[in-house]
Amino acid sequence: MIVAKTEAAGERSLLPEVLAFTSSLPLDRKLVREDLVGSLAHLTMLARKGIVPRDAAEAIREELRKVWQDGELPDEEDVHMAVEARLAARLGERAGLLHTARSRNDQVALDLRLHVRAQCALALDQIGTLLRALAARAKAEQDTVLPAYTHRQRAQPISLAYLLCGYGAMFARDAEALGFVLQGCAAMPLGVGAIAGTSFPTDREIVRKLLRFERLTANGLDTVGDRDFALDFAYAAARSIVHASRVATDVVDFASAEFSFVRLDGDIACGSSMMPQKRNPDLFEIIRGKSGQAIGNLSSLFVTLKGLPGGYNRDLQEDRAPILETGPLLCSVLGMLRLGLEHVRFDPARTLAAVEGDYMQATDVAEALAQKGVPFRTAYQAAGRLVRLCQERGLPLAKATPELAREADPRIDTDVLRACDPRASVGRKRNQGGTGTESIQAQIAALEAEATRAASAAKAVPRLEDLFAELSTTELR
Amino acid sequence: MIVAKTEAAGERSLLPEVLAFTSSLPLDRKLVREDLVGSLAHLTMLARKGIVPRDAAEAIREELRKVWQDGELPDEEDVHMAVEARLAARLGERAGLLHTARSRNDQVALDLRLHVRAQCALALDQIGTLLRALAARAKAEQDTVLPAYTHRQRAQPISLAYLLCGYGAMFARDAEALGFVLQGCAAMPLGVGAIAGTSFPTDREIVRKLLRFERLTANGLDTVGDRDFALDFAYAAARSIVHASRVATDVVDFASAEFSFVRLDGDIACGSSMMPQKRNPDLFEIIRGKSGQAIGNLSSLFVTLKGLPGGYNRDLQEDRAPILETGPLLCSVLGMLRLGLEHVRFDPARTLAAVEGDYMQATDVAEALAQKGVPFRTAYQAAGRLVRLCQERGLPLAKATPELAREADPRIDTDVLRACDPRASVGRKRNQGGTGTESIQAQIAALEAEATRAASAAKAVPRLEDLFAELSTTELR
Amino acid sequence: MIVAKTEAAGERSLLPEVLAFTSSLPLDRKLVREDLVGSLAHLTMLARKGIVPRDAAEAIREELRKVWQDGELPDEEDVHMAVEARLAARLGERAGLLHTARSRNDQVALDLRLHVRAQCALALDQIGTLLRALAARAKAEQDTVLPAYTHRQRAQPISLAYLLCGYGAMFARDAEALGFVLQGCAAMPLGVGAIAGTSFPTDREIVRKLLRFERLTANGLDTVGDRDFALDFAYAAARSIVHASRVATDVVDFASAEFSFVRLDGDIACGSSMMPQKRNPDLFEIIRGKSGQAIGNLSSLFVTLKGLPGGYNRDLQEDRAPILETGPLLCSVLGMLRLGLEHVRFDPARTLAAVEGDYMQATDVAEALAQKGVPFRTAYQAAGRLVRLCQERGLPLAKATPELAREADPRIDTDVLRACDPRASVGRKRNQGGTGTESIQAQIAALEAEATRAASAAKAVPRLEDLFAELSTTELR
Amino acid sequence: MIVAKTEAAGERSLLPEVLAFTSSLPLDRKLVREDLVGSLAHLTMLARKGIVPRDAAEAIREELRKVWQDGELPDEEDVHMAVEARLAARLGERAGLLHTARSRNDQVALDLRLHVRAQCALALDQIGTLLRALAARAKAEQDTVLPAYTHRQRAQPISLAYLLCGYGAMFARDAEALGFVLQGCAAMPLGVGAIAGTSFPTDREIVRKLLRFERLTANGLDTVGDRDFALDFAYAAARSIVHASRVATDVVDFASAEFSFVRLDGDIACGSSMMPQKRNPDLFEIIRGKSGQAIGNLSSLFVTLKGLPGGYNRDLQEDRAPILETGPLLCSVLGMLRLGLEHVRFDPARTLAAVEGDYMQATDVAEALAQKGVPFRTAYQAAGRLVRLCQERGLPLAKATPELAREADPRIDTDVLRACDPRASVGRKRNQGGTGTESIQAQIAALEAEATRAASAAKAVPRLEDLFAELSTTELR
Repeated sequence: MIVAKTEAAGERSLLPEVLAFTSSLPLDRKLVREDLVGSLAHLTMLARKGIVPRDAAEAIREELRKVWQDGELPDEEDVHMAVEARLAARLGERAGLLHTARSRNDQVALDLRLHVRAQCALALDQIGTLLRALAARAKAEQDTVLPAYTHRQRAQPISLAYLLCGYGAMFARDAEALGFVLQGCAAMPLGVGAIAGTSFPTDREIVRKLLRFERLTANGLDTVGDRDFALDFAYAAARSIVHASRVATDVVDFASAEFSFVRLDGDIACGSSMMPQKRNPDLFEIIRGKSGQAIGNLSSLFVTLKGLPGGYNRDLQEDRAPILETGPLLCSVLGMLRLGLEHVRFDPARTLAAVEGDYMQATDVAEALAQKGVPFRTAYQAAGRLVRLCQERGLPLAKATPELAREADPRIDTDVLRACDPRASVGRKRNQGGTGTESIQAQIAALEAEATRAASAAKAVPRLEDLFAELSTTELR
Repeated sequence: MIVAKTEAAGERSLLPEVLAFTSSLPLDRKLVREDLVGSLAHLTMLARKGIVPRDAAEAIREELRKVWQDGELPDEEDVHMAVEARLAARLGERAGLLHTARSRNDQVALDLRLHVRAQCALALDQIGTLLRALAARAKAEQDTVLPAYTHRQRAQPISLAYLLCGYGAMFARDAEALGFVLQGCAAMPLGVGAIAGTSFPTDREIVRKLLRFERLTANGLDTVGDRDFALDFAYAAARSIVHASRVATDVVDFASAEFSFVRLDGDIACGSSMMPQKRNPDLFEIIRGKSGQAIGNLSSLFVTLKGLPGGYNRDLQEDRAPILETGPLLCSVLGMLRLGLEHVRFDPARTLAAVEGDYMQATDVAEALAQKGVPFRTAYQAAGRLVRLCQERGLPLAKATPELAREADPRIDTDVLRACDPRASVGRKRNQGGTGTESIQAQIAALEAEATRAASAAKAVPRLEDLFAELSTTELR
Repeated sequence: MIVAKTEAAGERSLLPEVLAFTSSLPLDRKLVREDLVGSLAHLTMLARKGIVPRDAAEAIREELRKVWQDGELPDEEDVHMAVEARLAARLGERAGLLHTARSRNDQVALDLRLHVRAQCALALDQIGTLLRALAARAKAEQDTVLPAYTHRQRAQPISLAYLLCGYGAMFARDAEALGFVLQGCAAMPLGVGAIAGTSFPTDREIVRKLLRFERLTANGLDTVGDRDFALDFAYAAARSIVHASRVATDVVDFASAEFSFVRLDGDIACGSSMMPQKRNPDLFEIIRGKSGQAIGNLSSLFVTLKGLPGGYNRDLQEDRAPILETGPLLCSVLGMLRLGLEHVRFDPARTLAAVEGDYMQATDVAEALAQKGVPFRTAYQAAGRLVRLCQERGLPLAKATPELAREADPRIDTDVLRACDPRASVGRKRNQGGTGTESIQAQIAALEAEATRAASAAKAVPRLEDLFAELSTTELR
Repeated sequence: MIVAKTEAAGERSLLPEVLAFTSSLPLDRKLVREDLVGSLAHLTMLARKGIVPRDAAEAIREELRKVWQDGELPDEEDVHMAVEARLAARLGERAGLLHTARSRNDQVALDLRLHVRAQCALALDQIGTLLRALAARAKAEQDTVLPAYTHRQRAQPISLAYLLCGYGAMFARDAEALGFVLQGCAAMPLGVGAIAGTSFPTDREIVRKLLRFERLTANGLDTVGDRDFALDFAYAAARSIVHASRVATDVVDFASAEFSFVRLDGDIACGSSMMPQKRNPDLFEIIRGKSGQAIGNLSSLFVTLKGLPGGYNRDLQEDRAPILETGPLLCSVLGMLRLGLEHVRFDPARTLAAVEGDYMQATDVAEALAQKGVPFRTAYQAAGRLVRLCQERGLPLAKATPELAREADPRIDTDVLRACDPRASVGRKRNQGGTGTESIQAQIAALEAEATRAASAAKAVPRLEDLFAELSTTELR
């Protein structure tokens, strides 16, 4: 391995163990595509501005294309040096022209932004697919009734569609968070040099347009030391994976023998050789467990950044592992959650029985009574009496008779009593955001719209391969 | 203390130590203003929809106004129960009408959003002021030259204006992050009841408009269990305070005897009784130290949320401390940073000497030579030779003579040699984002524009006292 | 407020907002008892070594006693200055003698160690009580059978005693962790001055013995910048509270309608006015939620410490909130968990039914068969066949008939079939660490021994009031 | 890939993407040696107890030996299944005998403890080497004088030996923390089965002794769900790496042009091709940056564990990455810090000049005066006056003349004035823990003793290869 900068200084090389410890190549090798795209754009600008002669630029471009195809890189301190070394081996001194008016500080800032931007697009695509799946499932499950829980206690009857739309609402917010991440990534960093700018007559606007960024970063000192876009991405991922962890807890609980609300298909559930009825929700437990890595990565980035002097410090290299892990982590959790939920079958008889065997509709009785003009707290007390009478007789509320109702309060007539029917209870929550039919249909429509928005946002992000293809043939003058 | 819900059930009360452990009043007492504003809006809607009679609504409103004025609250489990208990003591059963079609679950969701929204506005205002101060200071410090650092090593000459604009660029991003937080807070949660909606003919749109939210939350189950807005705020605050920690490290270092770049005014620096020259940068150390609390609060929220079942769980109450700490923490750090920087005096002679006594301009010499057509790497080697010749003679690069230059490489003429002058070096970085004059002026203008944007965004958020005043007199039908 | 060090320097005072931001008094006022104990010990040493005249020492001691009694402190930058200011107001210049050969850096290091040591003792005491309660409960619940869960799926029958001993094993480890914290606190820091030691002929050994520390800190530079003891305590607390969170999840689940394994007494459960059967496990949810604060505090300390230069930096002041919160947080969680569990009633009929209605004993059948000499995997297959036959007939495994058994495998005789009885299944796990009777009795005895050890360890830590009383009358020469 | 348990149940296999997501093999393949050692010990016990026939045990042992040698493993869900599959392929049904009376739950608990124990030993060894190096360096640097810093301001003169001993004191505490981790790892988990124990007549004591653990875990339910030992290790590592980050900050600062206290050898410093004097402290920046990963791993584990139900949950699999990263991370940081410090050369002339050019000895003058009987605060004021007089004349304190001294206070005689000599100032701090010679020699001796203790503790941990060799030939009956 050759570390140019040190040997060039006529110095002893770094000790091999120091080199191994400080090298980022094992990680940033994954950024080679981003690095090549960035180099092509920079080269194009240098050529167009006449800073690099056109024929040299052509030759360098040709070599970059070969690296893209075969991906072969010598062992160097980092991916930038590896590409540089390979070019130098083929093109000799001319290769160095590529590095005019750029430093590794702004180069890595670009590579990482290109990476996060592309990963955001993949994650948005996953969210779009997930939202669409939740909306479709909700449409199909409007008549499945189950308890909603507060404090893990049965609280009120809802439709399964409502539960699914509730999940969807979380991930719809995550699409917005990824939009915020993209906004943060939309500033093009290349061209500020090591820290202070350059005296070459470069034009950062050309690079910006070629790479389809919205704006330029404002200040080089900030640019080379800034990892806000990485924090933003790690944060959005952690938030989304914590959302997934909550869905996972529901599924794990629902799959227990005690709840028996759901059955997991064998495609996603781990079985047991002796107990054929067993279907362990390992997939959802692992999804839940991934919160650890996601929050750990965010902590890691924050800790590394805390208290650093302004500008570039080599500590920043420690951003690599959390950044490179975040995209695949988020995409896999979102994808597995969608796939997993597709293989979770609800048992509508069991969930209905859970509702009918309980007293959750007491609130509905009280509300129905209050709407007849009975003062509110009085209505509550009457509903409470009815619950107690049912309990004494071992009856669930759904089986309360008109006689019992009259005994509790004469104003609880058959009309009011209808509120004991779980389906009616669900249907009555007509308000915006409630579990009633009209509200659910609006919610489903909203999820579908958000799915479309997420998919479009994903598509609007240029893909690395498309950028590379364009840059491979764009005019060099 | 009376805990209505338990005693109403004819139960033994909670053990006093359990009540003390589970009560949130010591913390959420700070939310009383938010709670009153929310209650007024809810009451107005109930009256307008005919759910609560107008005269009862008037009486309740009058009492709420008194609570606002005197702030007296009995000891209860939380702020909502405390307000309810006080109203009940004055108005008897009628007080209960206020709680029609609402639960504490959606009520606290509203209070917390109102709180975060208002705190965001305060923080945006602080950022606006900070950006304006940085822009003004940058304008004044365009001729102060100092080294920029990478690896805490002198890297290139820059103007102090450039350093300050670099700081500004970080906080300008924080204004955007707070905008994202506000977007997340812009969904009105009230009216979804405990979890599933309500069967009362309420209209959440009325409440939304009264409280000036942009939209309604989509789903009740999600609404009562969602703390994304709190996470977002804690995240944005942590990111911003980590930015402040980096500025603080610079100031602490610059204030050391070894750097001696700055002198702290006695108004902000802690002195020593025996060593009158001592001015300890405690203020900046504490700013840096606050990163701990900020990141700790974010961790705390994430951990509490991880793996919770969907819907409301009482664990969520543990959101109070981190949410309530975040606003004042962020505002105080931003305010103190601005105030502190105002009292930091740079010593332009010392900072210039640091530049002139070093070899940082070598890059400029190489770039100047390359622009004369000398192949790039050759130019670098020539500049390296010049540095070495200067070192051998104990000369800084700024004092390199034409003879030395010729010895290094005949092509280093006086024109190229001019690049050794630190001021010239600074001026040559004309590109967007560089330390050159045109770029700096664009950066200052951008900061000023962002300061204005942040201030406007702050002003656009309705203040709690204004909302309360409006709601105190608005039509009840 | 008077900040001695600044005014003494003839400087302008700090701006009031800077003073408010940098003052630690609102927090460290809670350390006044620790500060007084430390001051008394230091004073005693100074007097005994003849550095402070005896009559002056007597007078100062008398004043410190008064502060201890009335706790009145003027507003100052921190608790040390507040005590100093009060003494100066009463005793004039002589008060200053107390501060000979000590600085606030080593003084706060002592106060914080005294604090953590005392809080560790309280926490150990709580653990002792908790372990004793778990052991007693386990003794009483040896015949209650319930399922053990893996993946929230019923896995094997166990006794409730086994579950409780499992909880106990976690907290027994926490007692060891607190022992480690105490070891870390056992080095006496006072006497190293601001950072480098002192030239006064002090004797740190005297102070060490008076305050009953085991050893001296080794190096002043390390001593004033070290907060390992605080990290250790925050870590041990977080680990223990995460343990509590796991117990809490079990209780919350067991209290659900679906499990119905437990009933919470009204003394600890939050009820509902309308649904008298409702008993919300808020107490356990809040215990679980406290993990957030605990882990947040640990993160906070780590972030503050990361990357600080060696020696004392004012950033360290940010240790106050997490340190001072940790003790009460840990003690309250442990205390509430113990109290809460006392009020959790298991329903042995329900838990037994859960076991009997399932196929969890299949492993036992296979093991019993294997012990008859049937090759292992063959035995497993036979047990699997028996489960399937039972399922086809809608029978739980506990009701498998000898005929069915023969059909599955002729070698499953009545002896082997006995393994289907859940109680027998429990009893057969005789091995160390298993749920069988002998093992359980050993586990209970071990918990009792650990309870005693924890209580003794708690008692071995000197109490602040005892130290103060001793130091109030000890010889000053 | 074959997942036995699912296919055995006659189920469809897991979807390939689910298998890829849930498989831990890519990570736990690194645990193969631990797994083989654990299996050999288990096998030995089974054979000795007559549960597995001796010849079958011999055959299995032979196969396990081959896996140890060639390390070839088929693709399976985890390392345990991979070893099992390989054995089955060679030995057929007999292979299954190895899994008698054990489950993957207790198996992984053992593997992870063996791993952490071995990594602790490596880390202790690194600490021993580091402490020895610090002690040796301190011995050599007793006459190098430099400023100690508080608030990054020069505070008092110290010897470099004192600084190095201060660093050593931190890492000596880390050796104790690793001792605590080892204590937590000293409980042998194997033999508790999936969760409840086993009905086979196993003897866990045999396994414990073979693997040289100190005790057995107490309760199976706790054993399979417990990751305290992993938390402890991650915590101890994070604490130690934060210590390293503080040393790193010192080196980075000392290497700046402004301090110029140290020069980094070219073997460890990154140079610059154009500026030959440049030696960037990248190594130390990366050490500092590693705090992120270390604290991130700890967060990750905590988050994963929070709120899990008791017993085994598959979420626990997410422990793998943080556990497996922690050991190499800690060892590399400790090793690189030691290596790096060896290549850091202090410039005694520069550090002495920093001391002599300042007023840090003012405290010493005051103390010397006070020891002549001058009241304390008066002595301080006198020293302050002397500082001011020197400043007015542009003299550092070390150059104060007897005339100036008399002007400040007639009691400052030549004897007192001697305290202005930095070396004398250093020498006077004779107390325990101070920078004086006697104290330093005691500190060096203590570090050496701790180095020896750490090395012995490391050696006392059995190495995996030694265990494997022993178990390969031990008696099977």
